[in-house]
Amino acid sequence: MNGLPCRAGVEVLCIGTELLLGNIVNGNARWLAEELAALGVMHHRQEVVGDNRERLIEAVRQAAGRCRVLLTTGGLGPTPDDLTTEAIAAAFGAELEEREEIWAAIQARLQARGRPVAASNRKQALLPRGAEVLPNPVGTAPGMIWTPLPGFTVLTFPGVPRELRAMWQATAVPWLRRAGLASGVFASRMLRFWGVPESDLAEQVRDLLDLENPTVAPYAGEGEVKLRITARAADAPAAETLLAPVEAELRRRTGALCYGVDGDSLASVVLEALRRRGETLAVAESCTGGRLGAALAAVPGASEVFLGGVIAYANAVKQGLLGVPHDLLACHGAVSDPVAEAMAGGVRRVTGADWGVAVTGIAGPGGGSDAKPVGLVHIAVAGPDGCRSAPVHFGSGRERSWIQLLSVGESLNRLRLRLNNGGV
Amino acid sequence: MNGLPCRAGVEVLCIGTELLLGNIVNGNARWLAEELAALGVMHHRQEVVGDNRERLIEAVRQAAGRCRVLLTTGGLGPTPDDLTTEAIAAAFGAELEEREEIWAAIQARLQARGRPVAASNRKQALLPRGAEVLPNPVGTAPGMIWTPLPGFTVLTFPGVPRELRAMWQATAVPWLRRAGLASGVFASRMLRFWGVPESDLAEQVRDLLDLENPTVAPYAGEGEVKLRITARAADAPAAETLLAPVEAELRRRTGALCYGVDGDSLASVVLEALRRRGETLAVAESCTGGRLGAALAAVPGASEVFLGGVIAYANAVKQGLLGVPHDLLACHGAVSDPVAEAMAGGVRRVTGADWGVAVTGIAGPGGGSDAKPVGLVHIAVAGPDGCRSAPVHFGSGRERSWIQLLSVGESLNRLRLRLNNGGV
Repeated sequence: MNGLPCRAGVEVLCIGTELLLGNIVNGNARWLAEELAALGVMHHRQEVVGDNRERLIEAVRQAAGRCRVLLTTGGLGPTPDDLTTEAIAAAFGAELEEREEIWAAIQARLQARGRPVAASNRKQALLPRGAEVLPNPVGTAPGMIWTPLPGFTVLTFPGVPRELRAMWQATAVPWLRRAGLASGVFASRMLRFWGVPESDLAEQVRDLLDLENPTVAPYAGEGEVKLRITARAADAPAAETLLAPVEAELRRRTGALCYGVDGDSLASVVLEALRRRGETLAVAESCTGGRLGAALAAVPGASEVFLGGVIAYANAVKQGLLGVPHDLLACHGAVSDPVAEAMAGGVRRVTGADWGVAVTGIAGPGGGSDAKPVGLVHIAVAGPDGCRSAPVHFGSGRERSWIQLLSVGESLNRLRLRLNNGGV
Repeated sequence: MNGLPCRAGVEVLCIGTELLLGNIVNGNARWLAEELAALGVMHHRQEVVGDNRERLIEAVRQAAGRCRVLLTTGGLGPTPDDLTTEAIAAAFGAELEEREEIWAAIQARLQARGRPVAASNRKQALLPRGAEVLPNPVGTAPGMIWTPLPGFTVLTFPGVPRELRAMWQATAVPWLRRAGLASGVFASRMLRFWGVPESDLAEQVRDLLDLENPTVAPYAGEGEVKLRITARAADAPAAETLLAPVEAELRRRTGALCYGVDGDSLASVVLEALRRRGETLAVAESCTGGRLGAALAAVPGASEVFLGGVIAYANAVKQGLLGVPHDLLACHGAVSDPVAEAMAGGVRRVTGADWGVAVTGIAGPGGGSDAKPVGLVHIAVAGPDGCRSAPVHFGSGRERSWIQLLSVGESLNRLRLRLNNGGV
């Protein structure tokens, strides 16, 4: 077709009427695209079709004429609008057959959760003759790996991101490597930054963004910024040899702005630093309402360091459980440095933790004033060496959940910087 | 093709290598999809291709064989990788010609902003012969409205969301209406369910899933299940008239399983129920570490009802701040009904809230045993009428964050059901 190489690279086909209605953003397509790029797999096209048998068949047949591997997401559930497997089978005139081992696994999984086995679940055990099972370690529906035509393979995944990701890592990535699509080895490292805008960071490292191997690319994350270094080489040690000096140079230039790498989070980095010091942490949260604690508790093994704390949303709770003096609240208001300091010191005292972090602010949309606008947050860190507090303003135009997210990140980052400096 | 109607509806083609690299999520596709649905325009397919001339030509030609209108986004800028206009012209063998009025407007706009006029900007004044200008009121590059074949029209938009949206509202929507594509309206409603698997819910409403107008479709969400009802009619009141009886029937069949509609969350529904009763709520969280509080605090205006609570991650905090007796912990363990009840009662007492909800469980991956495996969570709800607790088991195979998410949902749902029954 127009000089295009026949059956080259990978295409992504996302299936679901909810995508065509605009109900949800196509996060799976973005995630798969990023993964394919990191693996160095050629990826030329993405498509979205609804839960419609004829259009699905048409899209699959067309893709089969163009690409080497088609990845589909969605439509593997038990309901009548889940049509992916049967449409793919029909596109190549194949029969569906029930796989006993899948059906047994579905029944076992549902029973283990105390859920009834519905007749509709049985359809999830059907695969085209000759297809391999693509196991789903975290959900009911498996996918498949099927080569209906020489040189064309389709891999199917559920639309649930958690299941897609688990299946991708466990089975699809090794398969792509074995199939020679991820040729050579790509090694990549994601450096993570807090407290610097993407454009500023890019400016600091501009010359490195033009490198060809390894490449350096900036990504904006949720309140954070990331730099991905990707090296391509014949084997892993060679890729690592390419990566290391670029990582070192990036770290040298960015200093304490870089808080971690790859799977690190601000919470995991702070917990690890405290664990090494043999110290403990408690939180006192007003405007974040528990989100700071939740970020810490999301890290496996947090209990070694994180004791808990107080969600002091109402002023009466600030007084009653944290011992914030009434006069302080009356004089400075709940959103102030003195109250943040009293909260951080209070939670340290009542829990016996070595460190206390407190957040009090105005997350909006209501509650702002000229003096204390929406987006103003006071954060205090109390430790063995004393307590310090300072305000931060995230901007009145931001929405509530974004202000809460930034408050959590900023709190953890302040504690991180304090610990970096020997806790002083 | 396979009995599909020739050239029906609208397709969206998003152009940009950054989409295929996963650098950004395709928000334009979602936004256009939502707009098309609201206009009642049939929309069957979305595609993404990179900044590659041959693949762009191929994608445009294929779309021309299928749809009545193709909307493209991206690739209208002045740089060499902006190829949209020339590739579309090439797809139909048309010449490009410079439009003097566009070139004059580009120069005027750049000069007004004190920016230099680059030679590369001149390319933005090129359109295929016969194409109409689609004016861009907020940026440099206009788009076009071009009918290269009878019954097939392409509308091009920039990739910058702000420009796309302005051009869409000002010119594209009126054009779609005049072309008779935006006939009637779609109205939809999303019913939300907790505590029922998608397959069970689908079983209960199976006959309604076959309706044609309105349609009913199930979706799996994060721990919840949703049913979307979508009606098509000549105007909004007529669509509502179609929706209402189906919604009523779904609610009748599913009873208390349906917790809310559209933008509701379990937290918002519980807060609203308490607000109407003039009652307050506090939480005591162990394994969720603050996530239950965060879910409540995510709702704007939560402070009217939600007082806060205690993150009792360590046992010492359960004792010190919630007054859980040491003997209870020693005798039953932290993950038990007696401790959950003591936590819920304790947080009610220390905060003065009318209702206390407590969560204590094993989120994993460590900490499980035969008697108390990962995924076992005890949830207690204490209210004016007393305190009740019961365990729930989410399955040992689930990951930590998922167990925490389900624990939050289950806690809120128990409180909801208790309030539904008059708080008894």
